Amino acid sequence: MKQRSIDLNSDLGESFGAYTIGLDNEILEVVTSANIACGFHAGDYNVMGKTVKMAKEKQVGVGAHPGFPDLIGFGRRTIQVDPDEVFHLTAYQIGALKAFCNIHEVPMQHVKPHGALFNMAAKDREIAEAIAKATAQVDEQLILFGSSGSELIRAGKKYGLKTASEVFADRTYQSDGSLTARTEKNAMITEVEKAIEQVRSMVFEGKVTSVDGEEVQVEADTICVHGDGQHALLFAKELRQRLEQEGIRMKRVGE
Amino acid sequence: MKQRSIDLNSDLGESFGAYTIGLDNEILEVVTSANIACGFHAGDYNVMGKTVKMAKEKQVGVGAHPGFPDLIGFGRRTIQVDPDEVFHLTAYQIGALKAFCNIHEVPMQHVKPHGALFNMAAKDREIAEAIAKATAQVDEQLILFGSSGSELIRAGKKYGLKTASEVFADRTYQSDGSLTARTEKNAMITEVEKAIEQVRSMVFEGKVTSVDGEEVQVEADTICVHGDGQHALLFAKELRQRLEQEGIRMKRVGE
Amino acid sequence: MKQRSIDLNSDLGESFGAYTIGLDNEILEVVTSANIACGFHAGDYNVMGKTVKMAKEKQVGVGAHPGFPDLIGFGRRTIQVDPDEVFHLTAYQIGALKAFCNIHEVPMQHVKPHGALFNMAAKDREIAEAIAKATAQVDEQLILFGSSGSELIRAGKKYGLKTASEVFADRTYQSDGSLTARTEKNAMITEVEKAIEQVRSMVFEGKVTSVDGEEVQVEADTICVHGDGQHALLFAKELRQRLEQEGIRMKRVGE
Amino acid sequence: MKQRSIDLNSDLGESFGAYTIGLDNEILEVVTSANIACGFHAGDYNVMGKTVKMAKEKQVGVGAHPGFPDLIGFGRRTIQVDPDEVFHLTAYQIGALKAFCNIHEVPMQHVKPHGALFNMAAKDREIAEAIAKATAQVDEQLILFGSSGSELIRAGKKYGLKTASEVFADRTYQSDGSLTARTEKNAMITEVEKAIEQVRSMVFEGKVTSVDGEEVQVEADTICVHGDGQHALLFAKELRQRLEQEGIRMKRVGE
Repeated sequence: MKQRSIDLNSDLGESFGAYTIGLDNEILEVVTSANIACGFHAGDYNVMGKTVKMAKEKQVGVGAHPGFPDLIGFGRRTIQVDPDEVFHLTAYQIGALKAFCNIHEVPMQHVKPHGALFNMAAKDREIAEAIAKATAQVDEQLILFGSSGSELIRAGKKYGLKTASEVFADRTYQSDGSLTARTEKNAMITEVEKAIEQVRSMVFEGKVTSVDGEEVQVEADTICVHGDGQHALLFAKELRQRLEQEGIRMKRVGE
Repeated sequence: MKQRSIDLNSDLGESFGAYTIGLDNEILEVVTSANIACGFHAGDYNVMGKTVKMAKEKQVGVGAHPGFPDLIGFGRRTIQVDPDEVFHLTAYQIGALKAFCNIHEVPMQHVKPHGALFNMAAKDREIAEAIAKATAQVDEQLILFGSSGSELIRAGKKYGLKTASEVFADRTYQSDGSLTARTEKNAMITEVEKAIEQVRSMVFEGKVTSVDGEEVQVEADTICVHGDGQHALLFAKELRQRLEQEGIRMKRVGE
Repeated sequence: MKQRSIDLNSDLGESFGAYTIGLDNEILEVVTSANIACGFHAGDYNVMGKTVKMAKEKQVGVGAHPGFPDLIGFGRRTIQVDPDEVFHLTAYQIGALKAFCNIHEVPMQHVKPHGALFNMAAKDREIAEAIAKATAQVDEQLILFGSSGSELIRAGKKYGLKTASEVFADRTYQSDGSLTARTEKNAMITEVEKAIEQVRSMVFEGKVTSVDGEEVQVEADTICVHGDGQHALLFAKELRQRLEQEGIRMKRVGE
Repeated sequence: MKQRSIDLNSDLGESFGAYTIGLDNEILEVVTSANIACGFHAGDYNVMGKTVKMAKEKQVGVGAHPGFPDLIGFGRRTIQVDPDEVFHLTAYQIGALKAFCNIHEVPMQHVKPHGALFNMAAKDREIAEAIAKATAQVDEQLILFGSSGSELIRAGKKYGLKTASEVFADRTYQSDGSLTARTEKNAMITEVEKAIEQVRSMVFEGKVTSVDGEEVQVEADTICVHGDGQHALLFAKELRQRLEQEGIRMKRVGE
């Protein structure tokens, strides 16, 4: 058995001005790490301050969730950027969130890029290294979150950062370790039992069974769950409860 | 004689994307403190990184220059905001610039609000305190710049910050210590000799002669000069040269 | 009896990107005129297209709802702008919405400024005239909405526009014809019966009883209702039903 | 001889707020069509009003120059958007500029997408058709500008629009009719004589000689020139003068 604990992370602080998104208060009861939007793809300075405060009160690890400067696209659209731009926009957003960590006297735990930036960083080495370098140069104590087996995890290690490999409870895997594309029929795991089984295998055995029946090695440091609706929230709650029953302890990556 | 040294500050890093403003490279040879725009009223993350690097190389003190989120108005327009909003937008921008200070391994020296925010903070106690509190809570070592005699200087002291009182070489003063409004004919001092004389009086005597001929007490820690055109640049250069000839040493406020 | 019909207007199309605000589909069943956000304080180009289409299908009059370029403040904050700026930002937003009217082959009926711009235009003659002039020069057939007795109504007439005077069912009035400030205890009318009675008086008699018991003359062409929550929606529905029972016909101002 | 006249177009109105770009006043003396930025990638509502007025005074054809909502990238970066989004953002921007055409009582002549959107529309049929459809549905009288032989020209014809095929005086062509990538050494034509010769061949013979020596058919309705610096301006002036000496008349496409 490789480990008996795991981190649960979720995107938070995505509200903006008069616009509200996400059941932040509820999901903070479930997760151990919060990826807080930094005002580029979502979130704003007021929301950031409040979200850091709430996370601290619930002893949830605070992380920066930098994304593309694309509020209308919620940071989900690939933008053709060069690594130097990624370096600077990542640093800026980490710094902005750090201000609120200082104010609320809570250390920043981690950095997890958002949406299109996260996906690009999984496969594009230069983009991944720009993010890792920015993170390391702003604060070398930060833990870098990336998909298990991604370029981003590799880049984090290259720049001397502690990393956290992310896995999914409710997505299926291909034999090369990548996620099945959402456009495929069998991309999602909708039965909670199967999701639990997949996480159990990843946490205790360090492997997952691909859609083709092959065993694939994975690192499972943190699981991504969502709080953007009642359904997602319930899934997250049940997942946590069941994992605890299985003897897996929920633990912040930075603990 | 109260002092024989003074700081010269200027707004820098105001370029944005494809848009260039300011003779940053040249004015950095003249000033001792740089107020660097933080991406709200001007500047962007790429420009911020480059400007911090340039300032460090020229041993110019690096400061955050937070403004209203109003790029189209260049932060010059009063916006009806509550102090809580000012607190958060100030903290955010200081934090963002701090990231680039970390990257370039240079301490952040000061904070000077920009434009309409600076003007509001001179007279509105709540706004001034929101800025001072944000500054102090993000980093208590920061020096807060404000107009001599302003609410902002008072607020900085209340929150335990070191402050730097700003005076003008090329603006006339009223008997109550406020600047003559730009809409008035006699608002500007266009002759270099008179500007030098005014600064000399402020630095050596701690006072300035108002347009009505009265002596007004001022604190003169730093003088604001501009690099947004050849004319302004030449004035700044000549001012510095003449002040040095008068025996006034140019010295960063944080030195 | 001055008239027996009235228009009901509401703000619509305020969603933005991934952010949803407002029960647009439901409130479109209740109102006769839709003030559609134009992408500055709320709304975006995708939302505008869909909202114009929905309004047309429900035979609701389409109007532009221009606001300040202040998404984070939802256009509710006073910004110190000169009339020339207001002229241009109003024209821009009307034109943008007109594109979607062309696409969906529906005439644009009216213009109603939003939030802080609406409030400024009620009292500031220059701002009011800038809005009226922009409206008239973009399309002289447009009807300009303003508060009953406001500078905006006056300005609309000066520029040859048809105007629609707006009254409130659920706000009390002062003896000078202005609305009681929301900060006052008696600002809101919460009982539906009283709201109906106020509207009846305004529609049939052309007057309203002020909080001090005086009769004040008002023009009542349109009533503003809200669809930003279940409570507001229910009030709007009941108001319409009761007014119809009173013999007041709901009719688009442009009909 | 296929024709003896040609249009010269240039991007204008790219200034934003306090930021100035482009020698608009000077280039307006040279060109016959102005592609005016619409506030997304560059330009703002104030600049648009002034630029339409200037273009009208100099009898230069007014066109909308819609781009991606990406001010920091100046609309030059590919963004992964679906055709429906392109349809709406194109319509919005055309409408916004039309408001200023109404105000200054000048017909809008054409639409030319900007930067990354222009490049995507050259090769991506769905993006091209979204632009053409938006243009046709907002105003079927508009002329659609696209690269000679591009999907955008094809799409314009499909939607019943008059089109104008754009060629370059200072870029070399590949044997398949595409432009040589800027990353190639021989991409640019720097000698004015060679540029004139290329335009002469395109205008009088309807063909261009590729870098491999092959003759390629082109439609040459309009040539793109630049006013973003003294060098570009001089090239444009000389090009115009020399073409006129060759007997080619400068004529707005909409004339």
